[in-house]
Amino acid sequence: MNGLLTDLYELTMAAGYFAAGKTEEKATFEFTLRRLPPHRNFILAAGLPQVVDYLLNLSFTADEIAYLRRLPQFSLAPDAFFDYLARFRFTGDLFAAPEGTPLFAGEPFLTIRAPIIEAQIPETYVLAAVGFQSMIATKAARAVEAAAGRDVVEFGTRRAHTPEAGVLGGRAAYIGGCAGTSNTLTGYRFGVPVMGTAGHSWVMSFCSEKKAFRQLQRVLGESAVQLIDTYEPLEGARVAAQGGAPLAGVRLDSGDFLTLSRQVRQILDEAGLPEARIMATGDLDEYRIRELVNAGAPIDMFGVGTSLATSADAPSLSAVYKLVEMEISGIHRFTAKYSQDKPSYPGAKQVFRAATRDVIARSGECGNGEALLRPVILGGQLVEPLPTLSQARQRASECLAKLPPALRQLEAGEPWPVIFSRELRDLIDRTRHNLLP
Amino acid sequence: MNGLLTDLYELTMAAGYFAAGKTEEKATFEFTLRRLPPHRNFILAAGLPQVVDYLLNLSFTADEIAYLRRLPQFSLAPDAFFDYLARFRFTGDLFAAPEGTPLFAGEPFLTIRAPIIEAQIPETYVLAAVGFQSMIATKAARAVEAAAGRDVVEFGTRRAHTPEAGVLGGRAAYIGGCAGTSNTLTGYRFGVPVMGTAGHSWVMSFCSEKKAFRQLQRVLGESAVQLIDTYEPLEGARVAAQGGAPLAGVRLDSGDFLTLSRQVRQILDEAGLPEARIMATGDLDEYRIRELVNAGAPIDMFGVGTSLATSADAPSLSAVYKLVEMEISGIHRFTAKYSQDKPSYPGAKQVFRAATRDVIARSGECGNGEALLRPVILGGQLVEPLPTLSQARQRASECLAKLPPALRQLEAGEPWPVIFSRELRDLIDRTRHNLLP
Repeated sequence: MNGLLTDLYELTMAAGYFAAGKTEEKATFEFTLRRLPPHRNFILAAGLPQVVDYLLNLSFTADEIAYLRRLPQFSLAPDAFFDYLARFRFTGDLFAAPEGTPLFAGEPFLTIRAPIIEAQIPETYVLAAVGFQSMIATKAARAVEAAAGRDVVEFGTRRAHTPEAGVLGGRAAYIGGCAGTSNTLTGYRFGVPVMGTAGHSWVMSFCSEKKAFRQLQRVLGESAVQLIDTYEPLEGARVAAQGGAPLAGVRLDSGDFLTLSRQVRQILDEAGLPEARIMATGDLDEYRIRELVNAGAPIDMFGVGTSLATSADAPSLSAVYKLVEMEISGIHRFTAKYSQDKPSYPGAKQVFRAATRDVIARSGECGNGEALLRPVILGGQLVEPLPTLSQARQRASECLAKLPPALRQLEAGEPWPVIFSRELRDLIDRTRHNLLP
Repeated sequence: MNGLLTDLYELTMAAGYFAAGKTEEKATFEFTLRRLPPHRNFILAAGLPQVVDYLLNLSFTADEIAYLRRLPQFSLAPDAFFDYLARFRFTGDLFAAPEGTPLFAGEPFLTIRAPIIEAQIPETYVLAAVGFQSMIATKAARAVEAAAGRDVVEFGTRRAHTPEAGVLGGRAAYIGGCAGTSNTLTGYRFGVPVMGTAGHSWVMSFCSEKKAFRQLQRVLGESAVQLIDTYEPLEGARVAAQGGAPLAGVRLDSGDFLTLSRQVRQILDEAGLPEARIMATGDLDEYRIRELVNAGAPIDMFGVGTSLATSADAPSLSAVYKLVEMEISGIHRFTAKYSQDKPSYPGAKQVFRAATRDVIARSGECGNGEALLRPVILGGQLVEPLPTLSQARQRASECLAKLPPALRQLEAGEPWPVIFSRELRDLIDRTRHNLLP
């Protein structure tokens, strides 16, 4: 399953490793970020369960193998390679930082150690799966920080890069601190609270706003949130308020949120509906939320769509998955890349997080603080159940609370100190000396 | 299947329409763009087959229905509503512009006409599916335009918003004119040419670059493209050239592409390898490609990843799916939205494309030029097989060739004229008059 969900070059390399007799050589690859995106002080790790599912189920069907055989790139590949693919299973190890851990440039999010073909093929999937969810979880954490205690709800599936990406985006946003998502499948699959009541089409499908609002109250009861801007928002607020209870609240989807929210609050209060909440949706992001919160807008809940579902100001991470170590018959060879501006560093690593800094060390070194990379899969078997999604969300919240306040702000602050251990520095120097003249 | 892959509010509205006795009311929704994204003169329609698959298979499993029953939002919904969901099938009509058609702000990409619940639920999926692929196809067309005849290959799955988005991104990029994709599953599922040979890990896994290159030639033969920048690119080019044929070419993934490509070309030519092609990858987009082409860089093929897979400079479209018309017992009622800056226009529509302008007319009007919206599904049945992916790619190429050259450029030009027919203008005026005091 999913054997072809990868870049072709992973599979041509697999054929090459096979032909070169490397099937028994163990390789260690690590996922790191070259740098943090603009305006980001950390990236929250997310997407690990999807990587685990992928690795534990990775295989090739007969049809998929037949497809590869027909490609010109495999015309010289031996039959034995395709037999190997037919039996393919991931038998290696996965070490990873738990979901919800904030990480910094150069730190491994995860490490895969396996016979080189098994470690190579997952590159594409791992980069996309962890890169995407980590990016969205981080974007969510920014909006939640800006909302200063008010609820933020993820409403962006319609702008997600495919509907299916919306499902995982809603999951990642929850890790980042969102109160819920509009994506129903995210709720069904992952237990994330789901939210949503009615859109403009609901209002337009009735002959009057009043009929639409009354009918919504009958159907949704205490969950009813009236969308008041289809025609004129203050008139909409009055019509909603005249309906009395039950009314969870009203939603503004356009216009000047600061002015409108104050006027709507007054309408609701004067109608004896102080418990009715005001929700704002439409072109919101963390900066706009901060402005509204700082201006004292009486908005109780922010629904964030496009900017969150696409991480609009930073829609990708500079994630890489680099070979750092080979092991043949117990002998280790360290690998690194010295191309311009895109170096990689040799050796399997561990990250130790202490109160004031992180130390990237060689795997097996002792260190102070929390060792962030933990065994997840060993010998192709899951070591123990992964933390639940709620635990991941809790971890994100607790880890972020421990960072200096400047690093939780929306602007780039003084970077969290991340240094290499002496042993790792020595390895880097020796490897460079070996590899370069 | 996929019944829950939608925003919750589509389903709460469905419950509301059901309770309000609207199951027999037919609704027409249309997918349009509020405006074109920055630097875009058109958007290429893409993603229609995914919408068709979705509509023809849309249903709810017993487990999904049980999940909805447990949500607080459905605590007042009648049992009959859940029985309705258990039997749910799409029985309506879909009209759409063929894939590969360039469209402009305000023009319907597609129209769904069905009993209102059946037309409402697809909103979220349709917006994400068509929005994403259209955005990527358009981004690809820009890179292809900039490459001025050189090949552009889509290499971005690792940066896609989930690996699965990469599969459809590769499909969309092919419609936009890319020569192929790195995503193997895109090749398997959709017949798109797949490309890729080896990455840095291949080179690093051998004790020397020379061994790595020779082994790649043995395995890939005439498909071998050597990645030459792992250590030092000119030395890499010399090692690649010394291997002689077979050699498809070399790939540069970092550094100053203009200078390096000239030096590498010289090395290859002096080694008697004038047929060996030079490929550049790494942080390319349509602007960088144009610069390199204009500077005369001897690059034969551009691999574009991040910027294409995420449409980095415009990672979302302002797509909306708006209710424009209701029909009850043969009586039509037209709907529109007049909220600030976010209006919608009433009535089912057709778009006529003539040589110098488009006319958005009412559905059923006669007009000059090509009628862009065609019946795809009628009464829940596919009318005829959709065009093939190659036909969609061909249509994009032919339609773009007919646009004024300024609109194919990378910068925003004088917009293509899009006007409303007199009948549509009359309908807009009358509807506004009816709805607003």
